[in-house]
Amino acid sequence: MNYQQILEQVSREAASLAGSGQVASYIPELAKVPPGRFGMALVTLDGKVFFTGDAAERFSVQSISKVFLLALAIRLVGEKLFERVGKEPSGNPFNSLVQLEYEHGIPRNPFINAGALVMTDVLLEHLPDAKAAVLDFARLLSGSPDVDYDHAVAASERATGFTNIALANFLKAHGNLHHPVEHVVDAYFHHCSLSMSCLELAHSFLFLANHGILPQSTNQPTRLLSVSQTKRLNAVMLTCGFYDEAGEFAFRVGLPGKSGVGGGIAAIMPGRWAAAVWSPEINHFGNSVRGMKALELLTTLTGESIF
Amino acid sequence: MNYQQILEQVSREAASLAGSGQVASYIPELAKVPPGRFGMALVTLDGKVFFTGDAAERFSVQSISKVFLLALAIRLVGEKLFERVGKEPSGNPFNSLVQLEYEHGIPRNPFINAGALVMTDVLLEHLPDAKAAVLDFARLLSGSPDVDYDHAVAASERATGFTNIALANFLKAHGNLHHPVEHVVDAYFHHCSLSMSCLELAHSFLFLANHGILPQSTNQPTRLLSVSQTKRLNAVMLTCGFYDEAGEFAFRVGLPGKSGVGGGIAAIMPGRWAAAVWSPEINHFGNSVRGMKALELLTTLTGESIF
Amino acid sequence: MNYQQILEQVSREAASLAGSGQVASYIPELAKVPPGRFGMALVTLDGKVFFTGDAAERFSVQSISKVFLLALAIRLVGEKLFERVGKEPSGNPFNSLVQLEYEHGIPRNPFINAGALVMTDVLLEHLPDAKAAVLDFARLLSGSPDVDYDHAVAASERATGFTNIALANFLKAHGNLHHPVEHVVDAYFHHCSLSMSCLELAHSFLFLANHGILPQSTNQPTRLLSVSQTKRLNAVMLTCGFYDEAGEFAFRVGLPGKSGVGGGIAAIMPGRWAAAVWSPEINHFGNSVRGMKALELLTTLTGESIF
Amino acid sequence: MNYQQILEQVSREAASLAGSGQVASYIPELAKVPPGRFGMALVTLDGKVFFTGDAAERFSVQSISKVFLLALAIRLVGEKLFERVGKEPSGNPFNSLVQLEYEHGIPRNPFINAGALVMTDVLLEHLPDAKAAVLDFARLLSGSPDVDYDHAVAASERATGFTNIALANFLKAHGNLHHPVEHVVDAYFHHCSLSMSCLELAHSFLFLANHGILPQSTNQPTRLLSVSQTKRLNAVMLTCGFYDEAGEFAFRVGLPGKSGVGGGIAAIMPGRWAAAVWSPEINHFGNSVRGMKALELLTTLTGESIF
Repeated sequence: MNYQQILEQVSREAASLAGSGQVASYIPELAKVPPGRFGMALVTLDGKVFFTGDAAERFSVQSISKVFLLALAIRLVGEKLFERVGKEPSGNPFNSLVQLEYEHGIPRNPFINAGALVMTDVLLEHLPDAKAAVLDFARLLSGSPDVDYDHAVAASERATGFTNIALANFLKAHGNLHHPVEHVVDAYFHHCSLSMSCLELAHSFLFLANHGILPQSTNQPTRLLSVSQTKRLNAVMLTCGFYDEAGEFAFRVGLPGKSGVGGGIAAIMPGRWAAAVWSPEINHFGNSVRGMKALELLTTLTGESIF
Repeated sequence: MNYQQILEQVSREAASLAGSGQVASYIPELAKVPPGRFGMALVTLDGKVFFTGDAAERFSVQSISKVFLLALAIRLVGEKLFERVGKEPSGNPFNSLVQLEYEHGIPRNPFINAGALVMTDVLLEHLPDAKAAVLDFARLLSGSPDVDYDHAVAASERATGFTNIALANFLKAHGNLHHPVEHVVDAYFHHCSLSMSCLELAHSFLFLANHGILPQSTNQPTRLLSVSQTKRLNAVMLTCGFYDEAGEFAFRVGLPGKSGVGGGIAAIMPGRWAAAVWSPEINHFGNSVRGMKALELLTTLTGESIF
Repeated sequence: MNYQQILEQVSREAASLAGSGQVASYIPELAKVPPGRFGMALVTLDGKVFFTGDAAERFSVQSISKVFLLALAIRLVGEKLFERVGKEPSGNPFNSLVQLEYEHGIPRNPFINAGALVMTDVLLEHLPDAKAAVLDFARLLSGSPDVDYDHAVAASERATGFTNIALANFLKAHGNLHHPVEHVVDAYFHHCSLSMSCLELAHSFLFLANHGILPQSTNQPTRLLSVSQTKRLNAVMLTCGFYDEAGEFAFRVGLPGKSGVGGGIAAIMPGRWAAAVWSPEINHFGNSVRGMKALELLTTLTGESIF
Repeated sequence: MNYQQILEQVSREAASLAGSGQVASYIPELAKVPPGRFGMALVTLDGKVFFTGDAAERFSVQSISKVFLLALAIRLVGEKLFERVGKEPSGNPFNSLVQLEYEHGIPRNPFINAGALVMTDVLLEHLPDAKAAVLDFARLLSGSPDVDYDHAVAASERATGFTNIALANFLKAHGNLHHPVEHVVDAYFHHCSLSMSCLELAHSFLFLANHGILPQSTNQPTRLLSVSQTKRLNAVMLTCGFYDEAGEFAFRVGLPGKSGVGGGIAAIMPGRWAAAVWSPEINHFGNSVRGMKALELLTTLTGESIF
């Protein structure tokens, strides 16, 4: 498969959608990103790397970091995580309080904000430093030791993120947050502020296409998740990874993936490759317009999907 | 892979769950089914057939027939179907009116009852006889010319199915039902009453594992759906096929599939096989308890899943 | 109090709101009413009658008839009625299915459509002819033996009232409708089609201002409801009589009352008088714009309200 | 009317309900109150005072203080208050987040917690000290200069009131809270902790039965609210004063009133008297079981109600 040629074709065709979304503005710092950026990268399990456009430029991964949280939380507590967070698609926006109230403080899945707050609480319970742990994990997965949080973004979200603080307090009221709200949201806002490029994201997701084994680890394979855990994490991405467009993404793209309001999407083709795309203009569901189109074109042109 | 041995192991292990669900009772006719039945069948794309238990006994497929409706509706109107029905998981019971009201008469996906009523309406628009069309399609797919509706079940549902009649009237009130309520629900209740065995269901689903081509058609391949249409139908099964347990099924089993309150489940492993299982005891979400467990064991023991 | 002069002032001042609402169009027959009509009548317990404008012209009372249903149902079964219907304001539109589903088929109060369907079912249980009973009651209360149903309106609603048929089927599914859906909705659509003038409505509501005694009955008082039943019916009007504007009406007007989408409103000042107003232009909550304003002016100018 | 004899009869009859509710436990400090307490007081506009039981014992008025907030807020900003808070019954528990989310941060009425938080924010905008203002107002109304906040209750709520902090943050996220969350909730928790007796509450509510004029002001009447403002405040009490039992209270009692989870209820009979009752055992809606019964008996025995 000539992935390089396909990426370039995808990039050209998706360009027609420029201007059809809006850069996320709810965090002042995010609103500064130039809307026209577009980058895409694909890395294969046999070590090949393809990319186009602004694939090396870092952006705010936002909710994509929830995949790192989920992998870490599963490593720490296994299936017990799902006593505190569900695994069903939500049918509601990512920051909705309605579902939480109806279901008594159990977030519907790990990828809505309330779910990520609970996972952060789990990390705080088992690790000396939840902020450092996620950062170290992202550096390990991406192979980039200088991946870092964007402290301006974290501070911006801290100053305006009243809905997330509301969610955390509501979880606390239901006994589903064991640490002080302040600690949990501070760590959470940092996790969201993680700044990575498409190339780094694609590398970071490759272990999920590799049954849980870190692909770079040639001599002595490093297993991060069991085969079954990896399958399950991928299933959660497919059913819950795109807020209220999970069905749409599965329908059009047909791959497990995760989006962020920074305009990034990472996705995997199990047994073959991982890809990441970035275009900051998002639709009103919070998903990158060109990003979704690019991945749809990728699966159409390659004929590769899980279905 | 020794599927026969695996099916037998699955059957033995799943037997421990006997008694942990309830036979569907909302239709009097369904309540008569012996709760202890268990059957399972698996047919491969290269023509091998494996089965165990009551795999040749027919039962009421109920909502599994919605997959036949969706395949026919896509053949008839293609993507335009999704102007009248969504493709997102619902987060609500299969017969909920709440979502319909909030979303102005557009069923959230084709596999909730309201979605199937709209698909039935589409069939009535393009075919001389919607009841005959679905029956003929099931006979073609299963290779069993004597597959038939169970008219006692259809009559039983007709006499007590007030919620479905409510749904149909509500769709009508929103202009999303073009034919008289009476015609639509009559056809719909018949579709649900389709009586098939695990063996017949497994054969019927095989084209969905075969990129849309009817597998029996050796000399001159019969394409029922395009590659892209097949992928999309499978995606809808994965995200919406199990009412409010779609996430759970994806998580534990990791295959596209569809369940019915008669206790049947059909699922596919793209490129390899289709399987069907039947055990009448269902949980409060409407899914077969032993059936879900059996398919989870199948994917665990074979190591096969889409993720 | 010079009620005649006040009614005329109210009429002049409310005229400025002409054109600010819309004539109900969901029933074709209702849409034919000239939007500019305005009538108002007030009758006192000591037998005086005041009126202005089109107060003698009949119009479709629609939901105002639910007050007659409630009075009859309370006479027939007393407090037991409230085992099948609640008495709390709904916070939802008059024809919503959402609340019914969340609360398992118990309509939240007697004045939403579902509640009126249940009351109609109660009437069918205890009376030989539920249609005749409501008509006779309206004739008795109004003192007009030629008050009648508007069969064209009833037929128009019958042909297009799919939402109400959906509600009735849903109630049936929950066991809260004992008679066939067809019988209940036929009677219900007739009740709604009752055609009365402001003068007739004002007379009809006077017993509710008179502790339940029919005011015309000079020699030997006819008690229709007990003191306590009357108080309770009035309380239900105050908290539930205006769909999702019950709070607004209590706030601005401060009287128990009931509106209909035909543009009529009837209200009472306990111990003193009953009034009715008609102006067909309604707001998006279904309440007459000029009607609400007229009653607000009436209580402001007279200084009379229950608070 | 022999109110004293009636209060004593009420007290005896309501005693049979002892044990049928639960003392509020969500604030640890409240859970310490002896469940068997019962007090009741009634003060008339012509200056008579009647009482029975523990009518002089102070308790935590909790949400009854919202009436003081509403009176003050209306005095400060008049009708403009209702640009930031609605006036419709909520159909949801007093601390629900669902309605807030559906209605974009506008609390449905002033008497749900979110509404009181907005009113507190209004006070902070126009007064040098919102805590002192409410306390001074309660002292003025009750004629008891030593009425005070219970700082242990305020601290207890401050330490555990995560749901209210969540509500405040959610209001902030929607721009409907202008002051820092910390300031608003601190004042709010103090307002709720106000400690008053039935006698003090009955005196405090008397101006609402007196068209807004402070009754004690013999020589030169002190008007606190206009006639129209008083009517409107009373209307809000009737439609919204009892959480999800406003309809029930209007139906059974038929008076404007307000309850608190401390087990107190205050109510008025316009033009005649104000009454307060206290019994700490509340039902699952948050309203005092014996308190509601006592007021129902009071209106039944006196034949007095607004309907």
